[in-house]
Amino acid sequence: MEIQFLGTGAGQPAKARNVSSLVLKLLNEIDEVWMFDCGEGTQRQILETNIRPRKVRKIFITHLHADHVLGLPGFLASRSFQASEEQTDIDIYGPIGIRSLVLSSIKQTGTRLPYRIHFHEFDGKSLGQILETDKFTVYAEKLDHTIFCVGYRIVQKDLEGTLDAQALKDAGVPFGPLFGKIKDGKDVILENGTKIIAKNYVSAPRKGKVITILGDTRKCHASVRLGLGADILVHESTYGKGDEKLARNHGHSTNMQAAQVAKDASAQRLLLNHISARFLSRDVRQLEADARTIFNNSKIVWDLEEVEI
Amino acid sequence: MEIQFLGTGAGQPAKARNVSSLVLKLLNEIDEVWMFDCGEGTQRQILETNIRPRKVRKIFITHLHADHVLGLPGFLASRSFQASEEQTDIDIYGPIGIRSLVLSSIKQTGTRLPYRIHFHEFDGKSLGQILETDKFTVYAEKLDHTIFCVGYRIVQKDLEGTLDAQALKDAGVPFGPLFGKIKDGKDVILENGTKIIAKNYVSAPRKGKVITILGDTRKCHASVRLGLGADILVHESTYGKGDEKLARNHGHSTNMQAAQVAKDASAQRLLLNHISARFLSRDVRQLEADARTIFNNSKIVWDLEEVEI
Repeated sequence: MEIQFLGTGAGQPAKARNVSSLVLKLLNEIDEVWMFDCGEGTQRQILETNIRPRKVRKIFITHLHADHVLGLPGFLASRSFQASEEQTDIDIYGPIGIRSLVLSSIKQTGTRLPYRIHFHEFDGKSLGQILETDKFTVYAEKLDHTIFCVGYRIVQKDLEGTLDAQALKDAGVPFGPLFGKIKDGKDVILENGTKIIAKNYVSAPRKGKVITILGDTRKCHASVRLGLGADILVHESTYGKGDEKLARNHGHSTNMQAAQVAKDASAQRLLLNHISARFLSRDVRQLEADARTIFNNSKIVWDLEEVEI
Repeated sequence: MEIQFLGTGAGQPAKARNVSSLVLKLLNEIDEVWMFDCGEGTQRQILETNIRPRKVRKIFITHLHADHVLGLPGFLASRSFQASEEQTDIDIYGPIGIRSLVLSSIKQTGTRLPYRIHFHEFDGKSLGQILETDKFTVYAEKLDHTIFCVGYRIVQKDLEGTLDAQALKDAGVPFGPLFGKIKDGKDVILENGTKIIAKNYVSAPRKGKVITILGDTRKCHASVRLGLGADILVHESTYGKGDEKLARNHGHSTNMQAAQVAKDASAQRLLLNHISARFLSRDVRQLEADARTIFNNSKIVWDLEEVEI
């Protein structure tokens, strides 16, 4: 499982940072890629990665500000190219309004998509668990921005222990129903009298990962709840230390506030994005160093950077 | 006067070519920049140029396909940044529907612009001269694409001769009303009896430039009419030699057809854009070489390339 950042800028694109988008690569888990926000130019950023647009099966939108959504119509169109590949439907989750935004743009530009879009819109009242599959559950909660904006908590279900088939074969267990019994934790006795202790052949269940991806927000309790114990917390850092008042006025956070959220949530790692174009390289190093004084495992991410989870 | 290409690709962005947009820089003439089409990501392409978004005072849209218009809302938003600079209104010319496309996107994304947009929409019936200023006249004519699409002919008015003030001063003409008379072509006699022959001090009027910028189109008579005697003809070249049938089916032109239009129009120079991502560098050289067999002054342009007119 990896997270890859397609745009880590704030508000406007900069030379080094495009506007907001990231993907959660779940290729080993479910052969899918999930996208979070899709700012203008995201379809072009993808050309610099190994992401196959057709693998993007779900898009989650945090809020409807231009720098988080204007790349959607273009991405949806380019996703339908390479006609030789199978066309797959897509699910889009986001605040009420996302459906109209996408459909009006598609209609006005005469775009024809050879697959279906399934919209899942919500408002502040219909939040909580917004999606459950056999391997993942996704929760959304309202954050504190200038317009309705949410954060997402993606929880991987705990993974069953895996059977060591080679070891069973070596112990003389015939391939067949006994394998299933052992996997279910039941000890068995073979015809030759050998006792097979199940737990010796099945690895312990593994805890699923928790990934928290927040939209634009002031420092708030919802961020902490969404990030509780997360393996990865992605938090915006539009402003730097000392700019708390500016951040509040514009509905954003500073690096220090983001670090405090990560600390309060006991997250494992903090990835800071939504970095303003006015920060130069040396400023970015300072932003990161300052955040680490509160939460040591903080990192400011760059466009196209990939982080293993 | 220069033309600079911001996106020379077709349909979808490629690594080397973004989707359609170009600017006509009229800084020396009227201190303005005019944009033609505005595909997704244009605001980011501009960061690689010396164009100040605030100088873009007019945008001309050829048609409403996604790759020609989806960058408009983002460009209009970023144009309003740098709050210290004066906010200037903008005029947008294009097919009926452009107003609704821009305004719905602005509304849906909660974008606030600190300047006004003046829309000038047209349909096939209201074409011809669409704009006249004291220095330029702009004409539009319907082309032959899969949806309503136009080409633009920008005609600079002839430039008055300029007065050689230094030479007049050297000849003993006192600065004042006599300068105006001489500029108007009237000979004058100075108090000391010297006769000043106006035409010796005023350069001949210069012919204004003609720039033709076409949208997506099949080969058609309108293209030739728009391009008649143009100093620069910008023509799409989505397909290569031999792909005339594909071009026709998709409402586009080949390089050879574009070259034939330039030849039939007796244009001075042909700049080919809207180049498909499937053409590699060596294919592009071939496209250009093939076009030159029909019209020698043909050139395939690249993103960010600037051409003096």
